[in-house]
Formats: sequence, structure tokens, C-alpha cells
Amino acid sequence: VSELDPLCARLVSGDRRALARLLTIVEDGSAPQRRELIATLHPSAPRARVLGITGAPGVGKSSVTNALITELRGRGHRVGVVAVDPSSPFSGGALLGDRIRMQSHHADQGVFVRSMAARGRLGGIAAAAPEAVLVLAAGGYDVIVIETVGVGQSEIDVAALADTTVLVMAPGMGDAVQAAKAGILEVADVLVVNKADQPGAGMLESELRTMLEVGHAILGAASPSESDARSAWVPPILRTVAVRGEGIAGLLAAADEHERADHGSESRELRRARRWIEELALSTLRTRIGRSERLEELAAAVAERTLDPLRAAQALLDGLRAEGEGDA
Amino acid sequence: VSELDPLCARLVSGDRRALARLLTIVEDGSAPQRRELIATLHPSAPRARVLGITGAPGVGKSSVTNALITELRGRGHRVGVVAVDPSSPFSGGALLGDRIRMQSHHADQGVFVRSMAARGRLGGIAAAAPEAVLVLAAGGYDVIVIETVGVGQSEIDVAALADTTVLVMAPGMGDAVQAAKAGILEVADVLVVNKADQPGAGMLESELRTMLEVGHAILGAASPSESDARSAWVPPILRTVAVRGEGIAGLLAAADEHERADHGSESRELRRARRWIEELALSTLRTRIGRSERLEELAAAVAERTLDPLRAAQALLDGLRAEGEGDA
Repeated sequence: VSELDPLCARLVSGDRRALARLLTIVEDGSAPQRRELIATLHPSAPRARVLGITGAPGVGKSSVTNALITELRGRGHRVGVVAVDPSSPFSGGALLGDRIRMQSHHADQGVFVRSMAARGRLGGIAAAAPEAVLVLAAGGYDVIVIETVGVGQSEIDVAALADTTVLVMAPGMGDAVQAAKAGILEVADVLVVNKADQPGAGMLESELRTMLEVGHAILGAASPSESDARSAWVPPILRTVAVRGEGIAGLLAAADEHERADHGSESRELRRARRWIEELALSTLRTRIGRSERLEELAAAVAERTLDPLRAAQALLDGLRAEGEGDA
Repeated sequence: VSELDPLCARLVSGDRRALARLLTIVEDGSAPQRRELIATLHPSAPRARVLGITGAPGVGKSSVTNALITELRGRGHRVGVVAVDPSSPFSGGALLGDRIRMQSHHADQGVFVRSMAARGRLGGIAAAAPEAVLVLAAGGYDVIVIETVGVGQSEIDVAALADTTVLVMAPGMGDAVQAAKAGILEVADVLVVNKADQPGAGMLESELRTMLEVGHAILGAASPSESDARSAWVPPILRTVAVRGEGIAGLLAAADEHERADHGSESRELRRARRWIEELALSTLRTRIGRSERLEELAAAVAERTLDPLRAAQALLDGLRAEGEGDA
């Protein structure tokens, strides 16, 4: 039917160049191309295990990912890696694509590494990551590692997608309180103190332990419905020296244990589907809003204070409804 | 007409408790309350100058903000401060409200400091910050400083709102390359090397200079339309030791200069209004999507792979249109 069909067929047969081109479509493709990609691959793509690796800049996330790849390859898995650069809305992508990363696996056909820019205002990583996972899973990669740079919404979006989310920290690189404030500690299933051979590792670990206890108490009280699903699992705190591979087998074992303990795996699958649908619907609506001819005149009226922004938003939505009648 | 009217009247007459209560409504209030707040305050609120202070954890943003307040007070301004904690979608707020911050201005009636959680999935700081600015402006604060914690989308949202965005960095706390990757460097109008008395300040400054030159070249080539508006302005790099107030007068002078140079101030006002309208419209749509009765069954079908997520999203939108007919 389309030009994507042969590409998808090559993907499924293990063609890495087809995989690369399809990931480029996920990242930069038009909405119709991405629509077709999802419609073609979704019905028959195998499910893959998704591991999220998050943490502040400088803690050694790439080293942890690199060591995890080695460990997973040793177990016979084929490993796809998506390294997310929170993108600029201005340049539309990473300023410096870090192509050198994970080069120790460069020659390994069972590993595929891709840097990807989150797409700024248009849904960000929450929209792009499920599509990248779909493409990699269809390409035969059964474990997919998503590594995010920075601290913020990306982490929370990745955690919603991952089976297990690993938060990496290091002595002296921002403290546990900062992670807790950013809400990252609450979405982490496994905590890693990397660079554990450096001074301050013990202090960071005890800080983390305290924050977890405080957080658990607050969460238990504040939002029972959200915490119910997670309350059974207490995130372990592990020490690694990822550049030397130390502690990585233990990290993977902890992730395995988390996956076994996560009885809500069916509801996780449902939650993922719900978020994906929501993001796709919102992307469509964002596009319609951005295209709306009324937006400019409404913005002018709001800037002049002759109209308040809420009435402007309502007028915009009324207009969309009328405009949208035709494009369903 | 409403219970908010007397509160808004007290706000305008300078009542700080009314201000605090209205900011709580911005943060936690129901959609109808926030609607009313905007409708009441927007038509007559004076315009305020908005300064954004961004940067990674640990670089000393709060010290810079604190020193800026002193400087602005010396010039006779009334200063409102919003310290944004990127919120957790789980706890619905900051785990530890940092109430101690900026306590040196605690007794000063011309300063109002508020910690605020971004509202997670429901529009985040992009939705809450313009409302907080509106309330503070209506309360007579003519300069409003928005300080964000973390690196990511919050910074970019704040930059869209601010007249001048200041990126604070410090030697040894993540490097210039990381900021560039996160897209923050591109939205900064003024760069500050804080803790400039520490080793590495000179190296950080030269790194920043290089990144700016590279970024300018890339931006100029990659996205001419976006860069046009900014290309005239080259962000200065300043050194501060904020805890001792050193370099802060220079920082404020640079911000003044940026504001004078920013000939596009009218278009900035328009851009702000456009973003605000978009965010309000999207919030409404997110709420409708979250409430939709069809979402659960659609998610189940997607999880079972009997429906692809795009068709599910389209079905959801069709359903919304029908449901939405009544609630305009």
C-alpha cells in the first residue's frame, strides 16, 4: 500500500538500516508517516522489556547503560538503547549528537544505540518514546533501555513507559533532596549510587534512605490511590562503579526482582496504552490549535486586555470544534 | 458576584494574606475558581517585568535571586518571587517546601516569596506561571522573579514568559555542554558564572563562550525564523559571587540592557498571550480526555493489540467532540 511497507518488512527481517530510517521517522517524520508506521507495526510487534535509566547530568548514566548492555548481552538478549536529549524547541534537536557514546558495543549486531531529541512542545518524549520502543521491538530487540539526560518531566514520562526505572546518582553531583523535590525519587524503582568508590558515597546512600522513608510516609498519607500500586515495593539502594562494571549484575538482578514483584504488570500495560492514546490525541489537538487562524487575533486581544485569556481559549476551542468537523 | 471579588479587592489594596490565598488558588484551586480569578484580575492588572532565573541544582540560583531582590529593592521596586518546584504527578507538589529560602527578606513588606509546585501533567508551570504573575502584578509587585529548579521543560516554559532569562551556572556543577544539550543555553538572555571565586570559573566561562559561538552558528543555519528575533542579542557572560552580592549590580544592568535591546517587546507580549491561550485550551482538553468514559475501553483494546493507538486516539477525539457539544 505504501512506501513504509517494504521498510517495515526489512525491519522485521533484522535490517539495521531500515531500523535507523524508521527511527528517523519517529523523530522527524510527518504526522501521516508516523501514523502509518504505528498502524503497520503495532498489531504484530512483540512486547519488549523496557528499562529506564534516569539521573542528573554527570552521575554516569551512560556508563551504567554501557555496563548494563554488556550484562544483558551476556544473558543473550538483543538490546536497543534510546538516549533521550531533552530537545530545544528552537533547534529542534540536540545541539551536539553524542555519537561516540557506547562505542564499545559499536560492532555488536545485537545492540542498537540511538540518540533522540524529545520533540519540544509537540508532545516531547512522552509522544516519541512509545513509538521508538515499538520500532525497536518490531526489529527484534527484546530489551530496550531508555536513558534520559536532565532532571524533570522527561524522567516522569520515561518512568510511565518503563517496566523498571533506575535512578542513578553520584556523590557530590546534586543531592538526594534535589531528586526528591523534582519528583524523580518517587518514580524510581531502583536507586543506584554510582561512582561508589568516591568520597561521600556512604553519605549519599544514607540521605537517600532517609528521603525514601520520609517520602513513603508522605506518599502513603497524601495519595493513597497512586501509592497503592507501588507501596508493596521498596526501592533498593545499590552501589555501582559502572566504568569498571562493578555492581551491574546486582543492578540487573534488582530490576528482575522488581519486575517479578510488580504484580500490576497487566495494569501497567493498560496504563501505558492509556498514556499513549492520550498523548496522540493531545498531539492532534496541539497541531489543530497551532494551525488555528483565530489564535493570532485572539492573542492580540488578550495582549491589549480587551479579552481575558480564558474567553480567548474558549473561543479557540469553539472554533476548533467547527474546523474539526471535517477532518475526522 | 462571587467570593473571589472581595479577595481580589483586598489583593489590589495590598493585603498580603489575600495575595497568599489567591496564589494557593493558582496552585491548587479548581478550574472554575482559576477561571474566575483570571477573569477578575486580567482586565485591569498592571504589567510587571518578569525575570527568569534558571540553572541546574546546586549552582546557587537562590543566592542569585536573593541578591537580586536586594538590588531591586534598592532601586525602589516591589519584588514578587515564584520559586518553582517541578512537581511530582504523584504527590501533587513539592516533597519539602523550602520555606526557609530568602528569609533575609522575610520582614520586608515590599517582597513576597512563594514556592510553587508545577502541576505535573495538567499543564505544569506553563499553565500556572502566567496566573501567578497576574496575581502578583495585581498585588502591586512590579518586578517578578521566577526561579526554577532542575533542567528541562520548565526552563523553556519560564523563558517564554520572562522578559529576560538568566541562566546560572557554577564551576564543577555540570558543564556548559550539558546546558547546551538541554536546550537551556539557547533560551538564556544572560549567562552567569556564579561561585566565580572557586576553581574552574575561568574554564567554565571559556566553555560557555565556545558553546555560544557554536550554538549561534548552528541556530543561524538551522532555524532562521526562530533565531531572527534573537540574533541581534548576544548573551553576555557575567561572573558573580552571589552569597556576597558580588556582580549582582552588573547582572541587573545586563538585564536592563537586554530589555532595551529587545525591540520585539510588543511581539513578546503577543507571544506570551498566544502561549497562555494555548495552554488554557490544552488544559481544558486534557481534562476532557481524562474524564472520557471511552478511554478505559480503548486502552484495553490497544493493550490487547486489537486496536492501534492512533485509531484509539481518533475514536477518543470523535467521542470528545460529541461529549463537548454541551459544555461550551
